[in-house]
This record gives sequence, C-alpha cells and structure tokens, in this order.
Amino acid sequence: MKESTQITKNKPTQKTLESRKRFLTGIKATGQIHLGNYFGAIKPMMELSQNSENEVILMCVDWHGLTNRAKIMAPGELSHSIIALYLALGFNLNGNSILLQSDFPQIHENAWYLSCSTASGLLERSHAYKDALANGKEASAGLLYYPVLMASDIVTFDSQYIPVGKDQNQHLEYASDMAKLFNNLVATDVYIEAKGVEREIPTLIGTDGDRKMSKSYNNEIPIFAAKKDIEKKVKEIKTDSKGLDEPKDPNTCTIFQIFQSFASKDAISYMRERLEKGTGYGYGHAKKDFVDEHERVFGVFREKYDYYLNNEKVVKDLLEPGYERANNYANAVLERARTALGLKSYNRIK
Amino acid sequence: MKESTQITKNKPTQKTLESRKRFLTGIKATGQIHLGNYFGAIKPMMELSQNSENEVILMCVDWHGLTNRAKIMAPGELSHSIIALYLALGFNLNGNSILLQSDFPQIHENAWYLSCSTASGLLERSHAYKDALANGKEASAGLLYYPVLMASDIVTFDSQYIPVGKDQNQHLEYASDMAKLFNNLVATDVYIEAKGVEREIPTLIGTDGDRKMSKSYNNEIPIFAAKKDIEKKVKEIKTDSKGLDEPKDPNTCTIFQIFQSFASKDAISYMRERLEKGTGYGYGHAKKDFVDEHERVFGVFREKYDYYLNNEKVVKDLLEPGYERANNYANAVLERARTALGLKSYNRIK
Repeated sequence: MKESTQITKNKPTQKTLESRKRFLTGIKATGQIHLGNYFGAIKPMMELSQNSENEVILMCVDWHGLTNRAKIMAPGELSHSIIALYLALGFNLNGNSILLQSDFPQIHENAWYLSCSTASGLLERSHAYKDALANGKEASAGLLYYPVLMASDIVTFDSQYIPVGKDQNQHLEYASDMAKLFNNLVATDVYIEAKGVEREIPTLIGTDGDRKMSKSYNNEIPIFAAKKDIEKKVKEIKTDSKGLDEPKDPNTCTIFQIFQSFASKDAISYMRERLEKGTGYGYGHAKKDFVDEHERVFGVFREKYDYYLNNEKVVKDLLEPGYERANNYANAVLERARTALGLKSYNRIK
Repeated sequence: MKESTQITKNKPTQKTLESRKRFLTGIKATGQIHLGNYFGAIKPMMELSQNSENEVILMCVDWHGLTNRAKIMAPGELSHSIIALYLALGFNLNGNSILLQSDFPQIHENAWYLSCSTASGLLERSHAYKDALANGKEASAGLLYYPVLMASDIVTFDSQYIPVGKDQNQHLEYASDMAKLFNNLVATDVYIEAKGVEREIPTLIGTDGDRKMSKSYNNEIPIFAAKKDIEKKVKEIKTDSKGLDEPKDPNTCTIFQIFQSFASKDAISYMRERLEKGTGYGYGHAKKDFVDEHERVFGVFREKYDYYLNNEKVVKDLLEPGYERANNYANAVLERARTALGLKSYNRIK
C-alpha cells in the first residue's frame, strides 16, 4: 500500500487521536458473497485488522444502498448477513469495529454542515451521478447528495486513512476538499482530511475462465453455500480438453487460478505439482480437491455464520464496544462542528 | 384562511393523530424584530396558538440559516433570542411547542429517505436554487438539498397544516410530492402529505411612508429597544406639511398606518379622532402618543424578554414538554420509515 496523497500538516485535532492509524472502509451488502469478493475485499480487511498498529472501522453502508433501491431490497437482512460473515471469518474486533451506518445519525448531521460549505457544482460533477444520467437513468436526489454523505462517513469518525482502489479516488478527494472547505469557512480545524491509501484490488477470474468473477455474469462460486451448490458451481469451471495423464499448465488452468484465492499453501503446492505432472490427475480430480478444500476452509465458518445470522442479540453485544468508541468519536466531532458554527442546543443544556 | 389544496383521503397514519389540527411553521432568526415582522408573522402565530383546536409547532430553523452563512453569524444567539421573544410575547405553550431545529437529528435521517425517492431534477428546479444561480451567486450543495430538508421538517412531525404566504407554495408542494413518492416506493403510508393553508401576510409600511417596513431599507421600528431608540425611529416617520390645527387624513398618515399594527382599539380610535379633527393635534403629538403606546404594549414584555434571553435553563425547561411530544412524533415517524424500507438497527435490539 502506498499513500496516494501528501501528508497534510499536523493539525491540532489530529494530535488528539490515539497513536494507532485509524482506517475506515465501507462495505456494501449486495447479497451472497463469492470467492471474488472474499479475495478482493474481505481478506485484505481481515489482514489489516490483525495488525495492532491499526484501528480498523468497517462500516456496512446501508444508507448508501437506498440510492439504488430498485436493486437493494431488504437492506436490513443483507446488512446483518454481511456483518455475520465478517464475524464468522474472524474479523478482529479487539480495538477494531464493525458499524451499521444507519445506527449513526451523526453522519447525516455532519453531512449537512459539509454541504453548506460545498459548491453545488461539485455534486453535479460526481462520477456516480454523471454515469447515472449518461445511462439514461433517473437519478435520485439521494444519488446527487451521495458524495456529501460519503464524505461525512469519513469525517464523522475522525478517520485518517481510507483504502481505495485505483481510479476510485474521486470520492475521497471530495471528502478531503469538503473537510478543507468547512475548516476554512469556520476558521477552525474541525474535520480531519483523510488520506487515501491506494491498493491494487486483486481480481479473480470467474468459472467461465473469461471474465472477472461477478454475480452479474453468473460465473461466481459462493463462500457459504450448501456443499451440493458448491459442487454444481465448481463443475461449471471451464477447462481445456487435456486428458487424464497429460501435463497441465496451472497458470492457464481456471480451476487452479480460483483455487489459489483461498486454499492453504500446502494444498496449492499439491495441486500445482499434480497438474504439472499430469499422470492420473485430470480436471475431475482437481475439481474434487477444489470442493474438499473449499469445505475445509469455509465449512468451519459456515456454522459460525449461521449462528450469528440467527442471533442478532449476540451480534449486537459483540459490536457494542466498537459502537461505544464510534459514538464517542462521532459526538466529539459533532460538538466541534456545532461549536465552530455557533449553534445553540437546548438538549445540551444541563 | 382557506385551504389551498384538496383534502387528501384519510390515511391510516392520519387516523392515529389526535383530533387537534397540527400546524407547523418555521421561524427564521435574522436579528432584531421590528413591527413589520410582528404584524405580519408573529401576531398571527400567537393567535393560532390561542385556539385549543390547534396544535401549533413553531420551529426555529437554524439549520436552514447555514445555507447562507455569509448572512447568518452566531446562529445560536439569534435562535435563542427569537425563541425568547416568542415566549415573552406570550406564545401559548400549553399543548403547543417551540422547537430548535438542530435539536432534532431525526429531520436529517428522514430527509435522506425522502431524497432517495425524489428525482434530482426537482432540486435543480427549486426557486431558491435557481434564484441564487440567476443572481450569479455560488450556490452551496446545502442550498440545492434545502427543499428536501424543508420537506423533512414537515413530515418528521406528522404535520398536517402549513401556513403559507401567497406564491410561497412551491416548497410545500415539494414536500407533499416527496411524501407521496416515498409512500408509493415503499407501498406504505409512512409520511403524511401536509396541506398548505394560504394566508395573506399583512405588510406594514415603513417610516419612509413609501416602502414595506424592512431592516434592509432602514425604515423599521423595533419591538424591543430602549425608549430613546424607539423615539429616534418614530421621529423619522415621514409626514406631510399640514399644520397643528389642520384636519389630517388617517388613511394617508404613515404614523397612523404603523400605529394601527400594534396599538389597542381605544388608542387607535383616539388617534383617528384627533387627527381627523385636527385642532391642537399635530404630527408631533401623534408621534408622542405613538411612543407612549409602544412603551405600554411592548414595555411589559421587554423585561420578560431580557429574563428569557439571560436564562437559557429556564427556556429549556419551558420548552421541555413540547420537546418530549415532538421527539415522540419524530421517533414514531422514523420507525415507520425504517420498517417500510426494511432497515435493521442494532441500537434498537433490546
């Protein structure tokens, strides 16, 4: 990972942060998770959360999903299921947090403050909005306002670092610009300007051996599904016509490409050797090994996943310490903003 | 007052309302209040609050003021002072409420839900936004989003009736449209479509005898100012050159026009007679009677006003029952919206 922007000068508000690096990343709940998501998005976040120098805040952005309601039905069920999944896969909650965005109304209030110091033209130039219009879709007011909400996600928790994929920098630049504009307007360092941490998002090939794994191409292999469904999907993986005893090139073998995304080192070496040698090891064998390893890696998590899925109160209790930290951050940021703006509040009078 | 829109069909959510008519009206804090404001906006609201068939919610819209921050400095002080003024003048808090908008974060959350079912084009067609652009001003994202926030002010408290001046209907129509669009999207009657109650806003002539009383013309007479400041302003009222003993026409006399806006019936009759008769009653006498009556009417309130102004905790306690009612309304509306959208919340799990 390399930092994509210059380090900004050390501001008073930044000094008050703990010494750990605070990362914020948004997760979208879009239905059943497949190996492509796991490999590209989930695994890197798990690793980030294992490093005690980092404080990782994962936020399930259910409010964002509403800008495209035609696609997102039952957002609550989807949100809970993705959170259950991160928990099952072992996201490290010790000092890190998983938040459900719509549990934090402070985000909307900060969004309003940001919007009052941001020119409207900036919203109209956002990629997501322009793309929607270019595709002849009727864009909602929510989609137009969306960059403000996204900027507020970032500033509300004093986030310092935002992992971004290549070419995904616009929203982060917007967030930094909005923070800066607001700070200039009130002549106080209220909001932190977060830095983007650019990373390659590894993409995984789909079962068609042709395109990126994606539900919209129907070429995906789920993480948590019944074994027979996994078997069915694995059978669909395209292979060439090499015979049982012919040597096979792992680098062009789609089974192996996908297998590498989740299998243990030993299992990867084993399959590579057998494919290269070829004798007595056909694609059918490779597919069987694929299914077994998938079961070995994810099977143990499936039970945990089902448990969390069906026990919301358990999840709530697990998330609680992170919620408390996040509320402290958000309330402190909001008070800075309100004080700088000179707003009064009867709620806050004791 | 006449209702400017058709009565909508009785919806389930409306049945749950108490039998009283719930009015919502926004008040903007823009500095010292003058007789023109009193006559045009404040007095009618006071009268509305005296009728026990109505439930009147006055909301001081401090968040709106931020869209034009160049003009609104110290919004908290201004808000408190306008609230102190309404209290001093005797707004009936029995079953009615005065709210400070920024104490109700539910408004922003509902705004987001409304925005996700509203086309972005609607925002771009709003008068306030188009006027700003036409005047070459750089419009903020807040000004663009402003109609959504205004619509949310209305729906968040299940408001049924909104007093509107002539030609001020656009924002209310927007609010009804947004409520309808959202209800259609989720196929549930979540938000009430409020009705506009059109009223003539009486305008008062200024001390120049020429233009509407307005601070921007510097032709205003304040309500709560030191007696010598009132005297100074009253001296500025334009008169013609009729002599002490000439009969004078009250209908063309600016002193009398302004006097009528606040004086008691007896005082009005007295001045009318003396002017018409003329003998021994010149404009100097009329101005002296004006100052005396102003002191009699507003003097008793000035002390109360100063008391509220300097005792925030007293004001908080007075507002408390209304805040409690309003929070109940807002939380219930929010739950309806969240349930209809299918959002989940860990905060809400017991």
